[in-house]
Amino acid sequence: MKSTPVKGTADYLPSQTLLRDYMQGVILDTYRAAGFERILTPAIEHMENLEKSDGGDNLNLMFKILKRGEKLEKALAAGDESQLADLGLRYDLTLPLSRFYAANRARLGNPFKCIQIDKSYRAERPQKGRMREFVQCDIDILGSESPLCELELIATTAAALQKLDIGRFTIKLNDRRLLKACLAACGVADEQMDTVCVSLDKWDKIGGEGVMAELAGKGIAEEACAALQKLLDGERTLDAVAAVCGENEVVQRTRKLLADVQVLAAGGYDVEFDLLLVRGQGYYTGTVFEIQSNKFRGSIGGGGRYDGLVGKFTGENVPAVGFSIGFERIFAILQEQGCEIPGRARRIAVLCSEDEAVPAMQKAAALRTGGDSVGVYIRPKKLGKLLNRLEEQGFDGYLVYGEGDQPRLFAERQN
Amino acid sequence: MKSTPVKGTADYLPSQTLLRDYMQGVILDTYRAAGFERILTPAIEHMENLEKSDGGDNLNLMFKILKRGEKLEKALAAGDESQLADLGLRYDLTLPLSRFYAANRARLGNPFKCIQIDKSYRAERPQKGRMREFVQCDIDILGSESPLCELELIATTAAALQKLDIGRFTIKLNDRRLLKACLAACGVADEQMDTVCVSLDKWDKIGGEGVMAELAGKGIAEEACAALQKLLDGERTLDAVAAVCGENEVVQRTRKLLADVQVLAAGGYDVEFDLLLVRGQGYYTGTVFEIQSNKFRGSIGGGGRYDGLVGKFTGENVPAVGFSIGFERIFAILQEQGCEIPGRARRIAVLCSEDEAVPAMQKAAALRTGGDSVGVYIRPKKLGKLLNRLEEQGFDGYLVYGEGDQPRLFAERQN
Repeated sequence: MKSTPVKGTADYLPSQTLLRDYMQGVILDTYRAAGFERILTPAIEHMENLEKSDGGDNLNLMFKILKRGEKLEKALAAGDESQLADLGLRYDLTLPLSRFYAANRARLGNPFKCIQIDKSYRAERPQKGRMREFVQCDIDILGSESPLCELELIATTAAALQKLDIGRFTIKLNDRRLLKACLAACGVADEQMDTVCVSLDKWDKIGGEGVMAELAGKGIAEEACAALQKLLDGERTLDAVAAVCGENEVVQRTRKLLADVQVLAAGGYDVEFDLLLVRGQGYYTGTVFEIQSNKFRGSIGGGGRYDGLVGKFTGENVPAVGFSIGFERIFAILQEQGCEIPGRARRIAVLCSEDEAVPAMQKAAALRTGGDSVGVYIRPKKLGKLLNRLEEQGFDGYLVYGEGDQPRLFAERQN
Repeated sequence: MKSTPVKGTADYLPSQTLLRDYMQGVILDTYRAAGFERILTPAIEHMENLEKSDGGDNLNLMFKILKRGEKLEKALAAGDESQLADLGLRYDLTLPLSRFYAANRARLGNPFKCIQIDKSYRAERPQKGRMREFVQCDIDILGSESPLCELELIATTAAALQKLDIGRFTIKLNDRRLLKACLAACGVADEQMDTVCVSLDKWDKIGGEGVMAELAGKGIAEEACAALQKLLDGERTLDAVAAVCGENEVVQRTRKLLADVQVLAAGGYDVEFDLLLVRGQGYYTGTVFEIQSNKFRGSIGGGGRYDGLVGKFTGENVPAVGFSIGFERIFAILQEQGCEIPGRARRIAVLCSEDEAVPAMQKAAALRTGGDSVGVYIRPKKLGKLLNRLEEQGFDGYLVYGEGDQPRLFAERQN
């Protein structure tokens, strides 16, 4: 039998779990205080839903669940590989939310401000902060087109990150429609938009020259490439966009959003326009966000507006926007920083002989009322080694049953 | 696309999630206060481990994960159904704990007192309190043979249930070795033990006559059946067991455990010996527990000693004992009782026009410092309908931005 966890998943030791629980508590409390309500959806989803979800590359990374019993026999007999699985593990929390909203809409607030903190699964190549089983922390607002939604999502996500003390971060903002308007103004044809965006998304990795070479290779017209190069070689500000596309409604909305976030941030974090921000998922339709920290290569959160996804279930248009914290990446940052958890309970060991178990447990129960974490352990005749081990393992003190009323702290013993 | 969740899994609305989070918080806090430490393990486990785990019937209820890429092609080409899956969803938290302990032993306390609160998966026929995706809350103690472990597990589990206010409950206790000793004394052959136990486990469902008929059908000797019938028709007390098997070590250990639990319970819950308690999993080796409540048909928790399981990974004997709360069943009980969550935050809506979004959000942030949950909403010109809807949705009050400094509570408006 194998004692290592499955590739890309992890076992978390008690000290790591304490940090993860603390982080999750801070994020959940911050989100609830801002008026968002938590829901829970299953990690298992219908294959049919997953496959039709516009999930982009994530669809290639799905863990599929084998059919069972007769259904499996039939699928095997048919020899059709695509029929082997009827269920899959979700690759994000946005698709399940859309399904949930369609099923429960009548019982939810309008707009519905929603928290999801839960696991998702992707069969990616694992690396630091990128797991195959990973926790995401999402807030979403469904049912409203108001830019207030974007503002609330950004301010609330930022508040959680500030409470977690991850250091300075930048929220990057764009609107997919701006990029598309610029591409159109440069002469990129409608049917080339998506493939051009895919190339532009690689700017950080392969640089401007790499992107332009890729575009030429894809057969984008020379004049369009030249116009695009000129735009992208410039400052790529919102003013530059307005100069190319005119001061349209999306430009104005983005301009106001940036200014409003600046005011709310009050210098506590940065906000920045990034014309090349695209995000991978196909379902985004308007504003897109990303969070960057100088402590982590790659984004530590992202999201955007996905006005079409919920409608796939409900048949009518439901505006929606969401922002997701990459929990595993924040966890990696805090672990590296050696984060001390504020307000951690003291750990006390009550030591007793086998015969004293019952009264020692009663004593331990009494000590717990003071807020300490108190466990009972059978004592050996000589205490020295045991005490050293307890101290090594992070206990704060001990009480030998029958000897005194209050625990003795290791910190005092050393003095 | 399908808007209902996968069969046997559930969506949880905000009010249900609030209750589930509250329950999980109470259980986790109680377990941590008693000196147990939480760990996390992945929901995805190696198929190899699952298949060799002595999980009994649960092995037939596994969700298996399809291999990916070339490995899947190979398995399909080989036409071997058993080769299609390399991973599976765990059916409980005990097997992952054993693997975890084997992998991390050197960095853990000894004995290691461990909390696991997480999801498991079984493709069972769903019914009330029995889901295909479900949460279990386990505490386990690894590395000690002392009966102190059983005492701590029972007292700590009971403390959590008492704090959740689920009403009166009974902890049922047995030791598998006692039942086997009785069967041997009645003349059941060694190789018939397991099949006899399977029949005895059905006593509650098919009654004594049904069980005896089944035993006769299985070819158990007539004299053995008669002796067994005599024992089981009696009071089935520990004294009756001692009369059949003698006052051996296991009888004495069980006698003391029952007495000790009685003292610790101090009348707050009942504890009872039940000779016919077997538990399904094959890995149990000694004491077995179950919790019964008159509010739920079937057990709401269970566990026992599984001294052999960890050794399958480590190659050396590691004594272990665990107790698991059936979270979904407690959730079903509390939901039916209409549980009010103590200390729930007030929900306040700050209403503003689109233009006032930024100062309204600043006002909301200021109100949050009082512990309220405060969200911002765009106000229509006439407030009446919106206020009625907010009240229906469980808001406690509202503040129209610019009109007054403190929220107005709906409870006051009605007076």
